[in-house]
Amino acid sequence: MARWNKLNIRVIRRVLGSLVMIEGAFMLTALGFSWYYGSDDFNALLYSAVITILAGFVIRLFTRPKVQEGIGKREGYVIVSFTWVIISLFGALPFILSGAIPSYTNAFFETISGFTTTGASILTDIESMPEGLLFWRSLTHWIGGMGIIVLSLAILPILGIGGMQLFIAEVPGPTPDKLHPRVAGTAKRLWGIYLLLTVLQTGLLMFGGMDFFNSLCHTFGTVATGGFSTQNTSIAEFSPYIQYVIIIFMVLAGTNFALHFMVLSGRFKDIFKNEEYRYYLKLLFAASIIVAVLLILNTETSNEKAIRDSLFQVVSITTTTGYVTTNYMAWPSFIWIFLFILMFTGGSAGSTGGGLKAVRQLMILKSTAVEFRRLLHPRAFIPVRLNDKAVPRDIVSNIFAFFILYMLIFGFGTLIMVLIGLDFDTSIGSVIATLGNIGPAIGNVGPVDNYAAVPDIGKWFLSFLMLIGRLELFTVLILFSPKFWSE
Amino acid sequence: MARWNKLNIRVIRRVLGSLVMIEGAFMLTALGFSWYYGSDDFNALLYSAVITILAGFVIRLFTRPKVQEGIGKREGYVIVSFTWVIISLFGALPFILSGAIPSYTNAFFETISGFTTTGASILTDIESMPEGLLFWRSLTHWIGGMGIIVLSLAILPILGIGGMQLFIAEVPGPTPDKLHPRVAGTAKRLWGIYLLLTVLQTGLLMFGGMDFFNSLCHTFGTVATGGFSTQNTSIAEFSPYIQYVIIIFMVLAGTNFALHFMVLSGRFKDIFKNEEYRYYLKLLFAASIIVAVLLILNTETSNEKAIRDSLFQVVSITTTTGYVTTNYMAWPSFIWIFLFILMFTGGSAGSTGGGLKAVRQLMILKSTAVEFRRLLHPRAFIPVRLNDKAVPRDIVSNIFAFFILYMLIFGFGTLIMVLIGLDFDTSIGSVIATLGNIGPAIGNVGPVDNYAAVPDIGKWFLSFLMLIGRLELFTVLILFSPKFWSE
Repeated sequence: MARWNKLNIRVIRRVLGSLVMIEGAFMLTALGFSWYYGSDDFNALLYSAVITILAGFVIRLFTRPKVQEGIGKREGYVIVSFTWVIISLFGALPFILSGAIPSYTNAFFETISGFTTTGASILTDIESMPEGLLFWRSLTHWIGGMGIIVLSLAILPILGIGGMQLFIAEVPGPTPDKLHPRVAGTAKRLWGIYLLLTVLQTGLLMFGGMDFFNSLCHTFGTVATGGFSTQNTSIAEFSPYIQYVIIIFMVLAGTNFALHFMVLSGRFKDIFKNEEYRYYLKLLFAASIIVAVLLILNTETSNEKAIRDSLFQVVSITTTTGYVTTNYMAWPSFIWIFLFILMFTGGSAGSTGGGLKAVRQLMILKSTAVEFRRLLHPRAFIPVRLNDKAVPRDIVSNIFAFFILYMLIFGFGTLIMVLIGLDFDTSIGSVIATLGNIGPAIGNVGPVDNYAAVPDIGKWFLSFLMLIGRLELFTVLILFSPKFWSE
Repeated sequence: MARWNKLNIRVIRRVLGSLVMIEGAFMLTALGFSWYYGSDDFNALLYSAVITILAGFVIRLFTRPKVQEGIGKREGYVIVSFTWVIISLFGALPFILSGAIPSYTNAFFETISGFTTTGASILTDIESMPEGLLFWRSLTHWIGGMGIIVLSLAILPILGIGGMQLFIAEVPGPTPDKLHPRVAGTAKRLWGIYLLLTVLQTGLLMFGGMDFFNSLCHTFGTVATGGFSTQNTSIAEFSPYIQYVIIIFMVLAGTNFALHFMVLSGRFKDIFKNEEYRYYLKLLFAASIIVAVLLILNTETSNEKAIRDSLFQVVSITTTTGYVTTNYMAWPSFIWIFLFILMFTGGSAGSTGGGLKAVRQLMILKSTAVEFRRLLHPRAFIPVRLNDKAVPRDIVSNIFAFFILYMLIFGFGTLIMVLIGLDFDTSIGSVIATLGNIGPAIGNVGPVDNYAAVPDIGKWFLSFLMLIGRLELFTVLILFSPKFWSE
């Protein structure tokens, strides 16, 4: 197989270099807020942006233009995995150069937590941070979310990762064979929707009395299902109106963006034919009701607040956003354990949400149900169907394997965190909350805590979990396979 | 499909009635120990045996002989599931009639824990129990183990449950099409091995100074991978020799009995060609070494005792026996959490061990590894191989579905136990220890605790988990499918 022979390093350098330069350009936008608020991070942001742009320039030196045509699958894997790592390495610069986060481990953790739209923070006092840095911190979410919708709807389906082929048919627009025009066309449409959601939410938050800076930061954290807030108490101190707006946009951000495109094309009815969407809404609805009823029966919370808190926490965890409006660890244990189990779900595929994804859960449940029918009719061929189409067995196996890998990583990850010295609850909590790109968890990394106390080695390990969780496991893990490099 | 039309109730009654009568006959054997020790349970055992035999007789009234030929798959599922429930219902009688266990919930829990070879106990002072009852309690393990090897090697492969077809080829002897002669022939051979192991271990334990009664009871608990002891401290007070003998026989009991048959036929070399066996031994070996090293590095335990305790606990948990020689919850948390993760493994298929089973773990790991190769060669057909044969995709899907179902039941089971009022650790511990037929777990149902404090509703739920875990999930759960009854 000749085309597998040698990794096209130039192509990889060109793409990575360009992306790093773009990152530097994004960094510059934080200067505006730094200047407006007169915060002392202006120089740090400026130097970081310059260093980043220069570095990107150096990385892509001596690469021909139009080399994108030479991108094969293997180059795809390398580019995707390295992009998230490299932009996190450079993205940590403003925190370091400003002295706001002195430890590079902490700065890297915070940055990769941003780009992977996880929202796990090491900051103990967020409100003491200068505005320019806070904006950059929230912007990493937005950039990460932008990357992930293109990745999941345009790139991963082509690479064949984890059942992502399932909704390639759902993506609107022409589907030429070449990777480049397809990605570019799809990306533009999806980013249009992303931008629209961003503008809408920012407007609605400002309408509720939030200032522009906070509206923008919280919108970035919402539409990317990230979870970084500018407040120490996350969303708890904001009005019910603000909380409801964020609930709605978390639901939208956790929805397959191809469906948003359908709505914009006037195909309202079609979206409810999408089985993943129905499953996703049912799960959110059912889980919220269960939590609300348990809260009303077992605590003194008023009905409206119980319903709002339930909705908010359930939606936040299921979409893997990670904003909180209340300390759910103070609820009766069976309620937060229910929320903990929800951490194993995740948003829709093709959304900015992380985790196992709704479509995989649905396929797993359907495949398991089919096994019962196969037992009764052993000679019949019973395919698993999604949206009225039989799903190829290769994709079903791939989804199963994804789930297995997810659980294995969860199990061994827990063990590693325990060995590092964390208690059991904190270990399982921190592993699922980073692997699923959620953010806050249970134990000592609960909704009112942060990751500051995790030992450095643990922070690097959790950073790795955020990365592989965000990139659908296989994309990163395949790089550790010797065959990937030898063939 | 005419043969699915109506469930053949007479066949079911005949088989169940016969098995209940046999159970009554087994109960009579406890009378010998009751008489010898002059314990006050003689009448209770006698009445229970008579009631049980009479009940069995009534159940099978007016059924023709030779009806076994009318056993279809559906009758098979009903018979297997109901057998374990009904013999547990009657098996609880001696505990109730003697007044030794006044609550029927507790008596049923103890009995189904015996028959499913789980070994989870509600007894707070085992040593105060009369000998006749203790013998009956251990005998339920032995009977359950007897049932399970025939079930897993002769009946489940025919029903097509959870990949059990995989080793049907491994079972020695002729393989006629009819269920009855096949089962009868295989059963005789397997029970011969079971009896041989029983005699050998009893002899070796007596050689180590244990009396006949205790040797027999502990042998029953070992060869069935059960875990009921006659001592409050399980195996902790016995000599290292006794502990090593039990370790060896736990390993043998957790081995596919078809391999024992190979050894008896002189095919020593063939058994190491069996991939499940190699995986099973490697897992035991690797896990024991890890625990031993962690123990030696982190505690004051002497080297010999650290190695023996590690071996014992790892083998006991992996084979799902549940005997203990030390309070592992007093070890550093990362060690008992490692043991907790081992609770998700299990013995070999075709052994008396429960849990996920070694062959399923192996197939799951292999299938996941194959997905990485598929990503690199998307157009190639890459089958998953076991023992040098490509495994049919139906069986691979079935194994995946089994794992998914196992994890779903674990998740929802935990939630139910938490709702019942148990703390988190006790909930996850009790669910995996009963579903995996292990016995002791973590939290308040740890190695030196018992299940007495679990609320009644929780005991019934855990009993249900023992049942479905023991019968490979599908066998029982298919009875809850409306299609099972309507088709």
